Amino acid sequence: MDKQQMRTTITAAKERLGLDWAALGQGIGMSPVWTTSACLGMNSMAKAQADALCEMLELPAEVSAALQAFPHKHWDKAIPTDPLIYRFYEMINVYGETIKELIHEEFGDGIMSAIDFSMDISRVADPKGDRVQIVLNGKFLPYRSW
Amino acid sequence: MDKQQMRTTITAAKERLGLDWAALGQGIGMSPVWTTSACLGMNSMAKAQADALCEMLELPAEVSAALQAFPHKHWDKAIPTDPLIYRFYEMINVYGETIKELIHEEFGDGIMSAIDFSMDISRVADPKGDRVQIVLNGKFLPYRSW
Amino acid sequence: MDKQQMRTTITAAKERLGLDWAALGQGIGMSPVWTTSACLGMNSMAKAQADALCEMLELPAEVSAALQAFPHKHWDKAIPTDPLIYRFYEMINVYGETIKELIHEEFGDGIMSAIDFSMDISRVADPKGDRVQIVLNGKFLPYRSW
Amino acid sequence: MDKQQMRTTITAAKERLGLDWAALGQGIGMSPVWTTSACLGMNSMAKAQADALCEMLELPAEVSAALQAFPHKHWDKAIPTDPLIYRFYEMINVYGETIKELIHEEFGDGIMSAIDFSMDISRVADPKGDRVQIVLNGKFLPYRSW
Amino acid sequence: MDKQQMRTTITAAKERLGLDWAALGQGIGMSPVWTTSACLGMNSMAKAQADALCEMLELPAEVSAALQAFPHKHWDKAIPTDPLIYRFYEMINVYGETIKELIHEEFGDGIMSAIDFSMDISRVADPKGDRVQIVLNGKFLPYRSW
Amino acid sequence: MDKQQMRTTITAAKERLGLDWAALGQGIGMSPVWTTSACLGMNSMAKAQADALCEMLELPAEVSAALQAFPHKHWDKAIPTDPLIYRFYEMINVYGETIKELIHEEFGDGIMSAIDFSMDISRVADPKGDRVQIVLNGKFLPYRSW
Amino acid sequence: MDKQQMRTTITAAKERLGLDWAALGQGIGMSPVWTTSACLGMNSMAKAQADALCEMLELPAEVSAALQAFPHKHWDKAIPTDPLIYRFYEMINVYGETIKELIHEEFGDGIMSAIDFSMDISRVADPKGDRVQIVLNGKFLPYRSW
Amino acid sequence: MDKQQMRTTITAAKERLGLDWAALGQGIGMSPVWTTSACLGMNSMAKAQADALCEMLELPAEVSAALQAFPHKHWDKAIPTDPLIYRFYEMINVYGETIKELIHEEFGDGIMSAIDFSMDISRVADPKGDRVQIVLNGKFLPYRSW
Amino acid sequence: MDKQQMRTTITAAKERLGLDWAALGQGIGMSPVWTTSACLGMNSMAKAQADALCEMLELPAEVSAALQAFPHKHWDKAIPTDPLIYRFYEMINVYGETIKELIHEEFGDGIMSAIDFSMDISRVADPKGDRVQIVLNGKFLPYRSW
Amino acid sequence: MDKQQMRTTITAAKERLGLDWAALGQGIGMSPVWTTSACLGMNSMAKAQADALCEMLELPAEVSAALQAFPHKHWDKAIPTDPLIYRFYEMINVYGETIKELIHEEFGDGIMSAIDFSMDISRVADPKGDRVQIVLNGKFLPYRSW
Repeated sequence: MDKQQMRTTITAAKERLGLDWAALGQGIGMSPVWTTSACLGMNSMAKAQADALCEMLELPAEVSAALQAFPHKHWDKAIPTDPLIYRFYEMINVYGETIKELIHEEFGDGIMSAIDFSMDISRVADPKGDRVQIVLNGKFLPYRSW
Repeated sequence: MDKQQMRTTITAAKERLGLDWAALGQGIGMSPVWTTSACLGMNSMAKAQADALCEMLELPAEVSAALQAFPHKHWDKAIPTDPLIYRFYEMINVYGETIKELIHEEFGDGIMSAIDFSMDISRVADPKGDRVQIVLNGKFLPYRSW
Repeated sequence: MDKQQMRTTITAAKERLGLDWAALGQGIGMSPVWTTSACLGMNSMAKAQADALCEMLELPAEVSAALQAFPHKHWDKAIPTDPLIYRFYEMINVYGETIKELIHEEFGDGIMSAIDFSMDISRVADPKGDRVQIVLNGKFLPYRSW
Repeated sequence: MDKQQMRTTITAAKERLGLDWAALGQGIGMSPVWTTSACLGMNSMAKAQADALCEMLELPAEVSAALQAFPHKHWDKAIPTDPLIYRFYEMINVYGETIKELIHEEFGDGIMSAIDFSMDISRVADPKGDRVQIVLNGKFLPYRSW
Repeated sequence: MDKQQMRTTITAAKERLGLDWAALGQGIGMSPVWTTSACLGMNSMAKAQADALCEMLELPAEVSAALQAFPHKHWDKAIPTDPLIYRFYEMINVYGETIKELIHEEFGDGIMSAIDFSMDISRVADPKGDRVQIVLNGKFLPYRSW
Repeated sequence: MDKQQMRTTITAAKERLGLDWAALGQGIGMSPVWTTSACLGMNSMAKAQADALCEMLELPAEVSAALQAFPHKHWDKAIPTDPLIYRFYEMINVYGETIKELIHEEFGDGIMSAIDFSMDISRVADPKGDRVQIVLNGKFLPYRSW
Repeated sequence: MDKQQMRTTITAAKERLGLDWAALGQGIGMSPVWTTSACLGMNSMAKAQADALCEMLELPAEVSAALQAFPHKHWDKAIPTDPLIYRFYEMINVYGETIKELIHEEFGDGIMSAIDFSMDISRVADPKGDRVQIVLNGKFLPYRSW
Repeated sequence: MDKQQMRTTITAAKERLGLDWAALGQGIGMSPVWTTSACLGMNSMAKAQADALCEMLELPAEVSAALQAFPHKHWDKAIPTDPLIYRFYEMINVYGETIKELIHEEFGDGIMSAIDFSMDISRVADPKGDRVQIVLNGKFLPYRSW
Repeated sequence: MDKQQMRTTITAAKERLGLDWAALGQGIGMSPVWTTSACLGMNSMAKAQADALCEMLELPAEVSAALQAFPHKHWDKAIPTDPLIYRFYEMINVYGETIKELIHEEFGDGIMSAIDFSMDISRVADPKGDRVQIVLNGKFLPYRSW
Repeated sequence: MDKQQMRTTITAAKERLGLDWAALGQGIGMSPVWTTSACLGMNSMAKAQADALCEMLELPAEVSAALQAFPHKHWDKAIPTDPLIYRFYEMINVYGETIKELIHEEFGDGIMSAIDFSMDISRVADPKGDRVQIVLNGKFLPYRSW
């Protein structure tokens, strides 16, 4: 079972059982964002997490094995087309140089890791229309000189 | 004076006077992120803000006019090359489908705006190495049906 | 049933029953443009709309479920090839800067939303050959400063 | 004087004299959209129009000559980056198949011309936030068979 | 039956019956070029033409329906690879500016239509080696000003 | 003097003297199409032709030398943007397979040369609007087997 | 049977019978290079050649028909990835301007044909390691002026 | 002096003195192809060769230094546009798989070097039109296993 | 059996038997890196190696034949997306000019071979976090002049 | 002074003084690879290092300031063209999946850092031709789960 079949299987079970991502994350003791990303095939679970998730979703062991496999992170298009995802692509390009200036000013030469990294998504109530808040948190990695 | 010349002029004055972006933001009553993005040419300032900034940086009126111009947001490369900026491009592609799932589950069909939008960057102390935290905040816009 | 299968199923039923898009839109109380876009897989219907449409087209519940799914808006080619669609791509590039000038002059810095958005298509009789008229209507979103 | 220099010259004169595009269009008896597009270098003016415009803007004859030249319509990027213009690119791709379906249903096989074409832009007041309305009007051209 | 299956079916029947494109065109009262393009899926036939063609080729009604469908004109590659087709791509790029100069000089600002358009292909005997002659004929469309 | 400077120089002289391409072609005993293409830098002239052209245009010997240089045929964009030139790109892609079928049926396996090649452009009067006619004429080159 | 299936069928038969390309070429009286290219689907054989090849390989008539079909010369990637093929791509780009200079100096303005063309590949013994020698031979085609 | 300026300087001197590439090659004891490629900036000369060439062309020492510099082999376009160079690109793609088959059959797994490589260009008289012959000669490099 | 099926078959057998790449390499007397690359389809094994590997993995002779086939080295994307592989792409671009400078300074004009080449991967213990060490070893190939 | 001017200035001074990269590295107490990369503009030096280097090269303080600036790591081409650099691009693509397999087998899911990273280049004497050895050393970063 590859990651694509795993993803279809998990999504169908989740709909059949009427569970949401938050419940699945809670059930395995992890955040909703990370749990979703692993179920969509972009991260790998430890065995205990994968087994727990399969038990919740009444899925066989081969799904657990697929969840534990180390993924090949792959995307089709250099520029995403879906409007929801494109807007983030746009933010990165509009604010990329700004982020670079401010991280360098605060931390010196280096980067924010996309590996030692976490993300949180939440709703912020607002009378003019609720807002989406996304928190990105990554370790600062200074360039090594040698 | 175009946005590129404005950017070079402001950056040079800022270095000469030994100011940082946080101080410039504070001086005009705005956040460091937004102030930086306007000085780099990706946002436009109101007249009062632009004049205040030019006074702080001892710059002439034409810089203020350039800060007030509505920018053409332009980037050269579909895929950024600088490692600091590329890591954000990677995050968006690795976690894009995850974000889409969770926003749709929470809010329904729609997007998070990149226009009615703000961003904050801060340092989070950590004994294993300090971390960069970036908060993205955008209005949820539901798709209209008609 | 994914959006592609849904589209094929709906189109075949529509041809078999000899209905046009206007009739389908009227039957569910929505415009022809939005109804067509949802049936082609680019928008999601509310349950009542999807059920009504399936009843008109004598289609099973799984088609209704597919109509309600939130779509991944995806297109294959950066530049469309079909002449009818390409002409719109050309208009946007020929008149894009003009639109930008005039919206900025009228509204200030911001954009016209493609989400809080509607479109209407109609025929305009003309003795030298009838004309197509397309009306685009989107909310103005000012850039937020913070 | 090429179209790029012409554009810079006209824009500077317009700002110096405090005129807007609507006034310029009115002054030469043409619509604001078409007038703007010609001043930005994407359409060519007749001699009388170009001379009238240069008189309003106190510009020399060589600007008039540049306005009369037949333009090479050229754009740099297959996919526009500025958010205002990108949104239109997105609309065309999201609704392109829909437009094709509805024009074919109404008119048969053919296209809407981007040459025998006009466009109008206006503000629509709305208590929830004003809206931009754009009307595209193009001759229907049926495919010829032979 | 989609256009691709239609194309395969027609080509196989044509070979089985030993007919050439000229004969097929003559049989339905149309030119060989247009007949070929419709059979390859790039144009749509009227019902009478499609029925006549299917009778000649002893093909069922669903082929006729496919011939009448309005095609999505689609091509895979921005730059064609087959040498016969590439040479035309090369001609257009080598002589494109020349054609633009001469059409503008003769007709003013506008284009030659690719929709209200016909093409003819013939052999020109030549003692140094026969030549291919292709005649392109399209309506001149002047740019509209408004 | 490179081909680009040559082109600018010739075009300016032609405008100053009020000559058209047909007159220039006639003056050197060549067709308007070929003469234009050589003046735009896409073909090379023999010395006698180049000298005659420079005499007509009152241009110095270095222009003649540039006209005689063998050009590097170069174009910037895989897909042309100018609508007049794009329409030809579209024709080649819409009718490319048709042309391939008909040339192969008439001549066997081979191509129509873009080198041993000529082109003619003319106006065809038509009560519904005049038409542009372009004749392409190229030697058939059969594939060699060995 | 399309060219791809033909290629697979021929290659399998060749391996089963233990023949090499040189033997196949000799058996039909043609060079190994051309024979290989036709068997891989990039050239078309005359009927006698195709029948002889199928007899040697004990293959049915439909393979012969496929060998006689005029191919669509198609390649997937603008830049080849296989190192053996890439090195030739590199040679053409490193030495392309050199070849252009020397052909123009010797022959005048024109090209070396890739259609009226042949190629030979052989081994050249060398004590420091044997070498591959490839001879390209194409007719010079002068540009036509008209 | 960079390679681009060197190239312009050498070409101008060569034209002024009426020398051809063969003469320059002979003058420094090297082949015309290699000499041309070094003068165009794609190979580096040893000091004695560079000095000899500069003496023949009456050029100063800085040209010799530029000839000795190790070049960055750079090309602008993935696919060349000039017809003479494009034809070689086409040959490589049409015959690439054929070359791969025949080299592997003769030599085993490996490549033909583009570094330990030479090329020769010559005219082959032919009553039906003279032909260009190009000989590519490169060391076979077997893949190493370890 | 093609290389892709071979790869799937070998990987499944390896997992079933609980072997790692180091053990497989040791079993056939080759390094882990080269053994892995051959099993993934990017290098070809000698018959003895392929047979030994199939015996270890209890696989049939057709797998051995596939291992011996000379591969077409093919990759889908110009820029890899998986973060582990992308980081190497980034290193090559960040340090490419540096490597070029230092190899040219040490060896003269030439390249490091990617064919007569080997690679080793190992773990380097480090109290601040273990490190990956990769050693690339390739023959220097000087450019030939002729 | 930007990084490009800095690079040109340093390279010219290095040549004038007859120093090599190893000597410059030794003079500032850093490795040759890192020193070269900083002088070419791809890394930033600490003030003491930059001042020491400028003293060795007899360069003014503005060069030191440029060496200390945090670089924008930028490259022009997705696929490098220079053969020396391309060979590394090829290695990464040919061996990328192999490296991924072996790092995952040894370390688990994660990447090798390109930031906390060093590189060494050396000559390995070999009777069949000396070899280039490059050692890449990067911290292993495990994916974080949260």
